Amino acid sequence: MTSIKKITFLFLIIVPLLFAQKTHPNLLLTKSDVVKIKESLNKYDLFTKSFNDAKKALDEALSKPIDVPYPKDAGGGYTHEKHKQNYNEMHIAGFMYQVTGDEKYARFIKSMLDKYADMYPGLKAHPEAKIESGGRLFWQTLNETVWLTHTIQAYDCIYDWLSSEERAKYEKNIFIPMARFFMIDCEEEFDRIHNHGTWTVTAVGMTGLVLGIDEYVQKALYGSKLDKHGGFIPQLDQLFSPDGYYTEGGYYVRYALWPFFIFAEALANNLTDLNIYDYRDQIIKKAFYSALQMTYSNGAFMPINDALKEKTWLSPEIILGLNFVYERYGQDKQLLSLARQHNRVSLTGAGLLVAKGFQETEVIPDFEWKSVQYTDGGDGLQGGVGIFRHGNKDDMQTLLFKYTSHGLSHGHYDKLHFLFYDQGEEIIQDYGAARFINIEQKFGGRYLPENKSYALQTIAHNTLVVDEKSHFNGKQEVSEKYHPEKYLYDSSNPDFQYMSAVDKDAYPGVKMQRTMILVNDKNLYRPVVIDVLKVLSEKEHQYDLPYYYMGHFISSSFEYNPFTSERNLLGKKNGYQHLWKEAEGITKDGFIITWWNKNRFYSLINSADSTAKIIFTRIGGSDPNFNLRNEPGILIRKNAKDYTFATVIEPHGVFNPTLEFTKDSYSTIQKVSVVYDSEEYTVVKINGNKGINWTLMLSNINADRNKEHEIEYGGIKYKWQGPIFLQK
Amino acid sequence: MTSIKKITFLFLIIVPLLFAQKTHPNLLLTKSDVVKIKESLNKYDLFTKSFNDAKKALDEALSKPIDVPYPKDAGGGYTHEKHKQNYNEMHIAGFMYQVTGDEKYARFIKSMLDKYADMYPGLKAHPEAKIESGGRLFWQTLNETVWLTHTIQAYDCIYDWLSSEERAKYEKNIFIPMARFFMIDCEEEFDRIHNHGTWTVTAVGMTGLVLGIDEYVQKALYGSKLDKHGGFIPQLDQLFSPDGYYTEGGYYVRYALWPFFIFAEALANNLTDLNIYDYRDQIIKKAFYSALQMTYSNGAFMPINDALKEKTWLSPEIILGLNFVYERYGQDKQLLSLARQHNRVSLTGAGLLVAKGFQETEVIPDFEWKSVQYTDGGDGLQGGVGIFRHGNKDDMQTLLFKYTSHGLSHGHYDKLHFLFYDQGEEIIQDYGAARFINIEQKFGGRYLPENKSYALQTIAHNTLVVDEKSHFNGKQEVSEKYHPEKYLYDSSNPDFQYMSAVDKDAYPGVKMQRTMILVNDKNLYRPVVIDVLKVLSEKEHQYDLPYYYMGHFISSSFEYNPFTSERNLLGKKNGYQHLWKEAEGITKDGFIITWWNKNRFYSLINSADSTAKIIFTRIGGSDPNFNLRNEPGILIRKNAKDYTFATVIEPHGVFNPTLEFTKDSYSTIQKVSVVYDSEEYTVVKINGNKGINWTLMLSNINADRNKEHEIEYGGIKYKWQGPIFLQK
Repeated sequence: MTSIKKITFLFLIIVPLLFAQKTHPNLLLTKSDVVKIKESLNKYDLFTKSFNDAKKALDEALSKPIDVPYPKDAGGGYTHEKHKQNYNEMHIAGFMYQVTGDEKYARFIKSMLDKYADMYPGLKAHPEAKIESGGRLFWQTLNETVWLTHTIQAYDCIYDWLSSEERAKYEKNIFIPMARFFMIDCEEEFDRIHNHGTWTVTAVGMTGLVLGIDEYVQKALYGSKLDKHGGFIPQLDQLFSPDGYYTEGGYYVRYALWPFFIFAEALANNLTDLNIYDYRDQIIKKAFYSALQMTYSNGAFMPINDALKEKTWLSPEIILGLNFVYERYGQDKQLLSLARQHNRVSLTGAGLLVAKGFQETEVIPDFEWKSVQYTDGGDGLQGGVGIFRHGNKDDMQTLLFKYTSHGLSHGHYDKLHFLFYDQGEEIIQDYGAARFINIEQKFGGRYLPENKSYALQTIAHNTLVVDEKSHFNGKQEVSEKYHPEKYLYDSSNPDFQYMSAVDKDAYPGVKMQRTMILVNDKNLYRPVVIDVLKVLSEKEHQYDLPYYYMGHFISSSFEYNPFTSERNLLGKKNGYQHLWKEAEGITKDGFIITWWNKNRFYSLINSADSTAKIIFTRIGGSDPNFNLRNEPGILIRKNAKDYTFATVIEPHGVFNPTLEFTKDSYSTIQKVSVVYDSEEYTVVKINGNKGINWTLMLSNINADRNKEHEIEYGGIKYKWQGPIFLQK
Repeated sequence: MTSIKKITFLFLIIVPLLFAQKTHPNLLLTKSDVVKIKESLNKYDLFTKSFNDAKKALDEALSKPIDVPYPKDAGGGYTHEKHKQNYNEMHIAGFMYQVTGDEKYARFIKSMLDKYADMYPGLKAHPEAKIESGGRLFWQTLNETVWLTHTIQAYDCIYDWLSSEERAKYEKNIFIPMARFFMIDCEEEFDRIHNHGTWTVTAVGMTGLVLGIDEYVQKALYGSKLDKHGGFIPQLDQLFSPDGYYTEGGYYVRYALWPFFIFAEALANNLTDLNIYDYRDQIIKKAFYSALQMTYSNGAFMPINDALKEKTWLSPEIILGLNFVYERYGQDKQLLSLARQHNRVSLTGAGLLVAKGFQETEVIPDFEWKSVQYTDGGDGLQGGVGIFRHGNKDDMQTLLFKYTSHGLSHGHYDKLHFLFYDQGEEIIQDYGAARFINIEQKFGGRYLPENKSYALQTIAHNTLVVDEKSHFNGKQEVSEKYHPEKYLYDSSNPDFQYMSAVDKDAYPGVKMQRTMILVNDKNLYRPVVIDVLKVLSEKEHQYDLPYYYMGHFISSSFEYNPFTSERNLLGKKNGYQHLWKEAEGITKDGFIITWWNKNRFYSLINSADSTAKIIFTRIGGSDPNFNLRNEPGILIRKNAKDYTFATVIEPHGVFNPTLEFTKDSYSTIQKVSVVYDSEEYTVVKINGNKGINWTLMLSNINADRNKEHEIEYGGIKYKWQGPIFLQK
């Protein structure tokens, strides 16, 4: 169905593409935006402030000598940061020239372009270009495409002010060779269905729009061979699932959305018949909202795959995207609550509209985080993520369960992995990426070697590791062929939300099924997580299930042997070499580990018997440059064929050091046990104080809500309807 | 001089002590307070809110059955927390009865007292009383004195409402035996010049005031033998220095001030001629302000000695103290800025006054942190602390240099130790105490064994360790005999603040002198710390100087050998057993270590030559119960007789992950070297980029500001005036 649509669509838009931009500027800032902004410049505080801040910073920059240094440094280094600064300043100067009419801004851009026009034609590969997609101005083409994307907008703003000779010079020395470098020399990057590809086609496409070169625009839309194996349209088709989930995850979608919005807006202003904002049932809108839903209550993107935890929705990419979404999709008032946090709008017509909305809206609704599920893959058939929430933003629990496909080059080997948040804090963490972005001493600010050797390996995640190997043996090309299957997702009852997914491919011959439930009960402080991970295998394996808890260890219910005077590594490879073994122990009949974080305690109550080993780990082994954070984990190790790990994570009690007040530092739930387990059914008992006496009944293979199940075991009859039932 | 004054004073006050409290209540809440509060109940929001919050919580408590359990648990356990809750509820109920006139509050107190009256006479030593000063209701008498201090106030509030038979019963069964238990059985505690002693005399003294037993009041003031070897007055004389510094430090003064304010207020209302608030040149006021100056910009008490880092000036003790200071010492408007943070006042006449002030003051000035020095010891002659500040509260540097006396039982072996803060963060930390207060699993919430084995040892601090032994060999009785001597302190020039102190006793035969300077320079992002630690010894020793930096290691200027696959301990005792050795290396000619914290980088630039060893450490060895935080340190080890460690700590650059912007991740200062060093003089060169070329000239033994110095070395003549000079 979709492919037929796309083909029809292709024919429809071929004709209107024969154009040349009639007016300048007409990319993100249009002539009519300029008129509106001039009229309203001091009317809306948020815009006025953003305008004044930008103008002040730019005027200060204008007072200093221009420097266009010969490219030398990688990320974080002087020449790298200077070229970034230059495009940003040119970009703002273009806007300022249009709005204030002050020619000093135009002259500034011209002076800078003159220097680039002198230097660029002589540039060879960047000296720090250690990767395939190396650039000329920057160590990676990625930064260079961002440079062009911004500089072409500045050029567009002073286009009419320049003489035709000047235009010819810049086009000949900079824009055309750079665009051709991206299209031809970096053809693979240009045609990549990946956020780097999006930046590349955006840079080239926008250059085409300004220069009136149809070829650039068409190739930007449909790929270097115009066959839709690359380009903006296939990226919109394939990088997002039908409900807007971006295959690389929440952290990268923030970044990836940036060029999507830039190019979409430029296309909307130039190729109106393309109706880009309506394309694929408003996929751009869906992508934006899914990005927001992938944040925790502090606005930080949940760090699945390669991700830096510092990143929040305060990022400039989100500011720009939010402004366009607000303008193009019906002025959703919820977005104004983010604009309040941003305390800034983009210098565009959309930014003006947000500032107006913010000023004129009396009651701004909070952004509403929801329990939500997203499918993965362009076809929506490649697994997905499920998210549960409980509570309001001041104290919100969030549980994210990941059963997506690989997620391109930034994907991790983390099938059926999960993250858990409470109190505004990570409680069960995802390590994120091993990277200190833009810090030159740390491997030039690039992804560190430990990103590959640890952070993306399975053992770095809260999921099953079989025989100390990563999923798909850590091979991306294999991992990309498979994805888990969703089995259940239901968040309709806020007191009993459940989801379940199955993976059969991460380890040949091993089937993993994980069911995660968020249960709210009046006898407990907060909802608890029930986690049932069922493994089926014909052969015996070593199963390792780690939980990377955040906080300070308080107590365990069993004796362990701590390694207090000498510490050794947990293993030799696949990420195990990065874990110190801090202690190990054997439990008799289930165990409890309790830790403390901020104002609460957390306990992990697990069903392991005496044949399992419990290992305390700490990240940081085999780390000569001290690149890793030294954080704790608890690992359950079991040798078995079929085995089910049943776990409850319970937040409990109060720790108030200001009032020196502590309550319930021991968990209410005291015991979790698997009382019945077959391929078809699993029954788990959960017992504790305050009358907690629960029985969880799972049908592992039949999701039919009306199906009645009955089993008898140990003289007890279990009877229920549907795939899952919790008897209290 | 002081002793003559004290004796005169004693005679003066003996007479007015012959009294019995005429009206009830008349402790912290007086009859006239009650009248004022009734009149103004809904006038001042802060008071109204505090009143309503307390009433709501209490009314809820009143709806539940009263429980006075038989004592069983230590801190954090049920019976412990319940008895704490009980005295708090009785205390508030007393107030509520007085203000609302509702007899249900009086009945509530009576019912509870009935149960205590039944139980208390039969109580023996508390089952968890593992220390000498064990109590009956609680595992330590400390909690029990707090119980009496609050309960006697509740009793005072319903005194007139009770029948004389009821009063006789409570006095006979509870108040008199408990007061006598404290005075007689716990005589040592009662007479202790220590915060536990203050609580004890407060409880007994207030009981005496209400019951009209002069003996209790006099002994509370002057000790169990009335000879001023114990009691409130000697505590005021000896626990505070003449400028108000409390010998245990900032964390404990917060707690210690609580009974001081409670008893002082009760005395002021009953023994007006005592003029307690004017006693010793208003020592109570000075103590309160010195406590506030001992906080960092987030309101947290700088954690010298045993201290929990979570404690801030939001603590209830500070709320109460602030209210009385505001009322009794001229209504300082600055205090209202703290009241805003508290968002609460005490339920007293003073609380009402603060709420009124807060409501009626249009512009509330911020609290002003200052560069300040305090002497230590009752006579002010036992060393002290020096504090430098730079910048406003949004981004304030603070440097604390500690050259105090031991600081009683919570003191650490940390002569010439320092702490450094920036950006609202600890940059060079004090570990504080090893304790999880009120968390039962963690050693009953008491100080952990690691507090003694690590946290109070010298190696846990940023100061010199000789031959791997703690100062005074870790013997408190020896340490208490000595203190360092201040040599310099001058904060008059905000761009060049300096202090210096000398210790000759911590290690026999070793003289240590440390000079710390905060230098602001226009070529640097922020002021830098210059730290010159000079050691003189006739014999050769091993000198270890650790710096516990907070943040993530970024880079070092030298090669080191990292222990990546096996980790061992740094030593066997005196705290060394708690440090893992992570790496070690040798530098050639000075070294730089850089780390990252929040939005900035920090570098430590040191003068060590190739005969010194640099060791990377991490806290957490020999820690079977995982009681310690696993934090990094850098240790400079040098075998020598005389040696001078010269170090600069430089904050630099910008790390902005939201904008993906990094600047100056390398330090500006590149080299620190000692170019001349004798007993008399030390000259240090500090060189770097941006034209930094400084020479620091120190006269180590002559503090005369007018004295001219001249030395010649290596063909260069150094000439300066006064004890310290920085030539730029």
